[in-house]
Amino acid sequence: MPLFLNASDASFEADFAAFLTTKREDSPDVDSVVAEIIADVRTRGDAAVIELTEKFDRLALTPDTLAFTPEEIAAECAKVSPEERAALELAAERIRAYHQRQLPEDAQWEDASGATLGWRWGPVSAAGLYVPGGLASYPSSVLMNAIPAKVAGVERLAIVVPTPDGVTNPLVLLAAQIAGVDEIYRIGGAQAVAALAYGTETIAPVDKITGPGNAFVAAAKRRVFGKVGIDMIAGPSEILVIADKDNDPDWIAVDLLSQAEHDESAQSIFITDDADFGKAVAAAVEKRLETLERRAIAGASWRDFGAVITVPDLDVAAQLSDRIAPEHLELCVADAESYADKITHAGAIFIGAYTPEAIGDYVGGPNHVLPTARSARFSSGLSVLDFMKRTTLSRMTPRALAAIGPAAERLAISESLEAHGLSVRARLDALNEG
Amino acid sequence: MPLFLNASDASFEADFAAFLTTKREDSPDVDSVVAEIIADVRTRGDAAVIELTEKFDRLALTPDTLAFTPEEIAAECAKVSPEERAALELAAERIRAYHQRQLPEDAQWEDASGATLGWRWGPVSAAGLYVPGGLASYPSSVLMNAIPAKVAGVERLAIVVPTPDGVTNPLVLLAAQIAGVDEIYRIGGAQAVAALAYGTETIAPVDKITGPGNAFVAAAKRRVFGKVGIDMIAGPSEILVIADKDNDPDWIAVDLLSQAEHDESAQSIFITDDADFGKAVAAAVEKRLETLERRAIAGASWRDFGAVITVPDLDVAAQLSDRIAPEHLELCVADAESYADKITHAGAIFIGAYTPEAIGDYVGGPNHVLPTARSARFSSGLSVLDFMKRTTLSRMTPRALAAIGPAAERLAISESLEAHGLSVRARLDALNEG
Repeated sequence: MPLFLNASDASFEADFAAFLTTKREDSPDVDSVVAEIIADVRTRGDAAVIELTEKFDRLALTPDTLAFTPEEIAAECAKVSPEERAALELAAERIRAYHQRQLPEDAQWEDASGATLGWRWGPVSAAGLYVPGGLASYPSSVLMNAIPAKVAGVERLAIVVPTPDGVTNPLVLLAAQIAGVDEIYRIGGAQAVAALAYGTETIAPVDKITGPGNAFVAAAKRRVFGKVGIDMIAGPSEILVIADKDNDPDWIAVDLLSQAEHDESAQSIFITDDADFGKAVAAAVEKRLETLERRAIAGASWRDFGAVITVPDLDVAAQLSDRIAPEHLELCVADAESYADKITHAGAIFIGAYTPEAIGDYVGGPNHVLPTARSARFSSGLSVLDFMKRTTLSRMTPRALAAIGPAAERLAISESLEAHGLSVRARLDALNEG
Repeated sequence: MPLFLNASDASFEADFAAFLTTKREDSPDVDSVVAEIIADVRTRGDAAVIELTEKFDRLALTPDTLAFTPEEIAAECAKVSPEERAALELAAERIRAYHQRQLPEDAQWEDASGATLGWRWGPVSAAGLYVPGGLASYPSSVLMNAIPAKVAGVERLAIVVPTPDGVTNPLVLLAAQIAGVDEIYRIGGAQAVAALAYGTETIAPVDKITGPGNAFVAAAKRRVFGKVGIDMIAGPSEILVIADKDNDPDWIAVDLLSQAEHDESAQSIFITDDADFGKAVAAAVEKRLETLERRAIAGASWRDFGAVITVPDLDVAAQLSDRIAPEHLELCVADAESYADKITHAGAIFIGAYTPEAIGDYVGGPNHVLPTARSARFSSGLSVLDFMKRTTLSRMTPRALAAIGPAAERLAISESLEAHGLSVRARLDALNEG
């Protein structure tokens, strides 16, 4: 049974605070193993990657077979049904259209002193995308990571995807092809992250690595951070649905389960201003759980981490939502659009009863890589900006330097950085003599 | 003597590659000490912070004296000379004007399917800024970190600054006041980072921590990353100057030294297309080093990590620059503005002979917190965006759901995520019945 809370109860504040800090996942300490793997790949390159792939994925590769050939990719893609291909293409098109609007603008202007200031954005030259193998090998995640990179203008985009026992997911290859990925390697784990970060004889190093993975992959990303850029380290996923009683309990139930079925550490939270409706939704969840394919996983998540919270009014729901800072927030309330304005911290908001979160996972357009574990307080979903960097630009004229240089010299002296001051002074003196 | 390289020499490629990977700083392994300090602060709060401050800073505090009072701040600020105050105010005004232009725009649109999509930006609620004590306690860094936060709309901005033996830097307090900082605590080290991240009885936790610090501070920031957001982990600073022979060698020399004087691990690189001019600049550096206040530091940096590189033409200089991906890049060449377009990777570009890098450290307007150690390949200087986060918005109408929902359902089934598909199907069925 999930946790039932009522915001009007005396014990609510303590219970909710405890609920917020519940640990949902034990990260095994794999750091020393990962450090060894990275050192091995840095020293021995391809040979280390091939050995580790044989060990962990039971797959014998050579430098020549590390990457899928165009023929292999074409053969795998041909296995995908036309319906699946059309769905992937629709998704890609919508994701591309959304992310193209995120392209930032350069700026340049002259200020009153005569100085020209500005900045310009440019893409990262090469990016690597980690795609998990096995059960969690999601073609939608390939689109969500690869398309923003390509929209940003990343010239070289490499994917690493383990194929344990040689089993390939054709949809992943097709998604990569649709997204315009340039290289696909059949490797995974910390060794794949190390290969992307440091390069091997066969795999050129990249500048940025994104994509989800298991504890080894996450630890490897943390370790190579600095040598390359990384995206966030994702925690277990969560959804918060806020709904009033004018909803179909079954719709809310399947929405909650769509998060719970991801994994046992996922979290589904439901907040309503009607206790009876809360019970009806909980009952609908139980009913769906009787037949759901992934009922073991979804049931464990709902039982261990699910919650149904009744509030006296929906303003309280918005306040609780901001304390949760949910990755996904569904608003099934009257005038949901205005209600969304009350929310400060959320990765993605799905507005109105016809916007189930699953739309956002696949075809809505916004990215489905979103901040988990309350990090929506300070971070954002994946975007085009994650694959770009900004260079600031300054140009002083003699007049501008004469106007603002003395203040720089003054502050340099205050900070005991004499040469800083001298670099300004040398020019000011020349101007005064000139 | 710095390294002299000539791009026309047969050994150049090997020498330059070795130069690029020279390690300039040993990071002492302080991770286990830092882990203990963080655990201690999480468990014992104020008491731990106070004990550690007594131990490391030889300063006896109580919960009541952890923060500077408004009276103490006013008293310290009154010690600053009018000239210094005016310089700080000019710097603040220019930094504010530049960063205000970085405020991102919200977006919302309806697409052909009838779906409303968009995003909105909002500030982080609370941020903490680490300011080093002692020699590296720079008021300019307070402005460069605090002003973007306040421009972003951060409501609560707290500073931690250690005051070893009770010695305060009045300029740091004045810079904080000018920037609109809300709280100032006289604590430092890993204990201050832990207090900001987890909170104590006296210090409320923040959502984002920025600012430079020593190895303990850097290790603590790495550890609390995830609980809060952090800015980049800065490495030792570097400058690259590209200049043709139509420049005053002394100007270039002081520019190189303005980087070298920061610390012995700093790096100053000079590239020119005229070998004689390269020698003249090197001679000018030696001459300035005879009298420079920080000649011990600047001399060591220049001797150990400095370089003078001669290239056959300036296009080669631009290519080498991109391989260095310098934090600071000064362009003292003819038509420097067009030349800047050849550069792909740099934190900040200073265009033309009247734009010494020191202008950007203080009063130019752009941020002086910039990506070091080649990370300009994938990251950007500090900006308003570092103190904001984006929430994506989606709203489907029944028509939009009917148009794109089936593709989502199709992909959900392909990914074996049945509940995802059902959450779409339940609505589509209702629409079909309706």
